[in-house]
Amino acid sequence: MHRTRIRVAEDALDANETIARANREDFERAGVAVVNMMSAPGAGKTALLERAIEAGLGETRLGVLEGDVQGSLDADRIAHLHVPVVQLNTDPGFGGECHLDANMVRSAIPELPLAEIDLLLIENVGNLVCPAEFRVGEDARIMVCSVAEGEDKPLKYPLMFRSCELICVNKVDLLPHLDVDLERLLANIETVNPDATVIVTSARSGEGVEAWARWLASFAAE
Amino acid sequence: MHRTRIRVAEDALDANETIARANREDFERAGVAVVNMMSAPGAGKTALLERAIEAGLGETRLGVLEGDVQGSLDADRIAHLHVPVVQLNTDPGFGGECHLDANMVRSAIPELPLAEIDLLLIENVGNLVCPAEFRVGEDARIMVCSVAEGEDKPLKYPLMFRSCELICVNKVDLLPHLDVDLERLLANIETVNPDATVIVTSARSGEGVEAWARWLASFAAE
Repeated sequence: MHRTRIRVAEDALDANETIARANREDFERAGVAVVNMMSAPGAGKTALLERAIEAGLGETRLGVLEGDVQGSLDADRIAHLHVPVVQLNTDPGFGGECHLDANMVRSAIPELPLAEIDLLLIENVGNLVCPAEFRVGEDARIMVCSVAEGEDKPLKYPLMFRSCELICVNKVDLLPHLDVDLERLLANIETVNPDATVIVTSARSGEGVEAWARWLASFAAE
Repeated sequence: MHRTRIRVAEDALDANETIARANREDFERAGVAVVNMMSAPGAGKTALLERAIEAGLGETRLGVLEGDVQGSLDADRIAHLHVPVVQLNTDPGFGGECHLDANMVRSAIPELPLAEIDLLLIENVGNLVCPAEFRVGEDARIMVCSVAEGEDKPLKYPLMFRSCELICVNKVDLLPHLDVDLERLLANIETVNPDATVIVTSARSGEGVEAWARWLASFAAE
């Protein structure tokens, strides 16, 4: 089982775009497709990823880069499923950086088993603002939006919703217990990002998990 | 009804502590107690505030400063309850600042009706990382933690939980529908911040709303 923790020590904010391009070239050379997965805290990124791994990704060999301010709770969960995972902690930055940037991801590349994977999933720090502003070398962006957060989030955090190719609208098993109108949430997503693919999911009930796993496998095979 | 929108144009990150102290001196001179309310996106800050206003804050005259990346959805909700509210939008900052800082709040002070209020509640941008790093001139900090976000959030975002005097554990009406153990969440909060006052709340069912409104009124009367 491949698992390493990397601590980010340097100020990594300069020249983000340049470094993101260099990362992407490295990933392309290795034949690895890369997705950057983002959400608010507790929207269910890790749980959805666990369900996709359990559902199976076909021939796709997955690797995961876990971004967190502190700790390795999520990396531990993924490692438990025998997927190679590298932990990036952002807490040595300015009180804890609220996002991953290209330079942080670059510092992790030597630890990633690129020759042994087809798809690298980067799980970003839970935050709906800054992660959208920093490309890290990804080919596509995924965000997870929990229905428990309310219908208005696409309107309040439009850059995040606009910058993603795939949006998983998660925790829909909770809808009967919320004052949230799914159709209105989907309409708000459509308003800010009409081009996004949207999958309605529940890591708890399993709804949409196969479609989400299929999306990942197809993306890796492109 | 007092309602103004302010757009933050300058780079406001320097000398945050100095400016926070200046803000606090201005608030003290005006006899206004100030709380900084923080949470992840969609944890229910605005809904809890609406419930407290409806429950009544005794003699306390409340004013609200709403921080958002874009839009004025929350300010509109508060203004509807006849509470003076000022909107601060952070989007002219670097792609949208993910937090309020002391200088942004300072730019709003001339718009606040300080002579007519006893308590100023500053609703920060939804984010569990950076808002904890920037004091804005507050006397106390409140955070709202939705049980739908999971038990592990105090361990993943310890600075936020540690920096608050009051923690509202919200949306507890959802507990029967979640794989979340309230006792474990409370124990995790206790681990990172044993000194915090914790109130278990639901804006939907009304649980804990009176205790929360009482906390605000007592704080303003101190």
